[in-house]
Amino acid sequence: MGRDDCIFCRIIAGQIPCTKVYEDDAVLAFLDIGPISPGHTLVVVKPHVRHLYDGDSDVLEGLGSALGRVAGAVVEATGADGCNVLCNNGRAAGQLVDHVHFHVIPRRQDDGLFPHWPKFEYEPGQAEAIAQSIREKL
Amino acid sequence: MGRDDCIFCRIIAGQIPCTKVYEDDAVLAFLDIGPISPGHTLVVVKPHVRHLYDGDSDVLEGLGSALGRVAGAVVEATGADGCNVLCNNGRAAGQLVDHVHFHVIPRRQDDGLFPHWPKFEYEPGQAEAIAQSIREKL
Repeated sequence: MGRDDCIFCRIIAGQIPCTKVYEDDAVLAFLDIGPISPGHTLVVVKPHVRHLYDGDSDVLEGLGSALGRVAGAVVEATGADGCNVLCNNGRAAGQLVDHVHFHVIPRRQDDGLFPHWPKFEYEPGQAEAIAQSIREKL
Repeated sequence: MGRDDCIFCRIIAGQIPCTKVYEDDAVLAFLDIGPISPGHTLVVVKPHVRHLYDGDSDVLEGLGSALGRVAGAVVEATGADGCNVLCNNGRAAGQLVDHVHFHVIPRRQDDGLFPHWPKFEYEPGQAEAIAQSIREKL
């Protein structure tokens, strides 16, 4: 199943060590070795799938369920005030390993992480036109 | 089911309009009115649940499946190079509406959004101690 050239496949196969926190049929969860905050955890789907939107429904269902469970444990264990749960898809979005994974990043009030949320406003009619094009792809 | 004081419950109930892109038994997806990039979509679970880790397994399974489907359509429709899929839990993490939702944010190469990823290194033994405390909460 796993790919020899994928570090997450090799971790799942037990060929590379990790600091594991959880495992079930759908996912393996372990600490990120380049954490943003203490307890920063990766929840990795078991099949080698590059983007979230490439995954089968079964895989994504198991992932959704595991995400809630792992995120709750991470927040409780670290005593955090909350967490970000983030999946980057594609290099443009910051994905560095081409195997679907969610970051669970514990957050504390005023920790200063991710301060930038650069929102804008749509021109009149722009939102409806974009929504229509999305509906057509669903 | 919905709460009168929750804007997402009111949108789900049809009491407040939205630019809908998708709906199934588990979620409603519509364009964010304060988008970070064109096509920025919210995928909102139907029950009023505050944090991802407060959700029932059934709700989270449906959410996981819908997330993949919606994210794929958003990327395809906008011609983006990828996307971030992000759930903020708690004020400390940037959650503004206390009803579980994922942001699907289309990204383009070098768009300059979210440039900051402030990682650090664990002290020796620190990672294993944190992982053990997370395991104990699972």
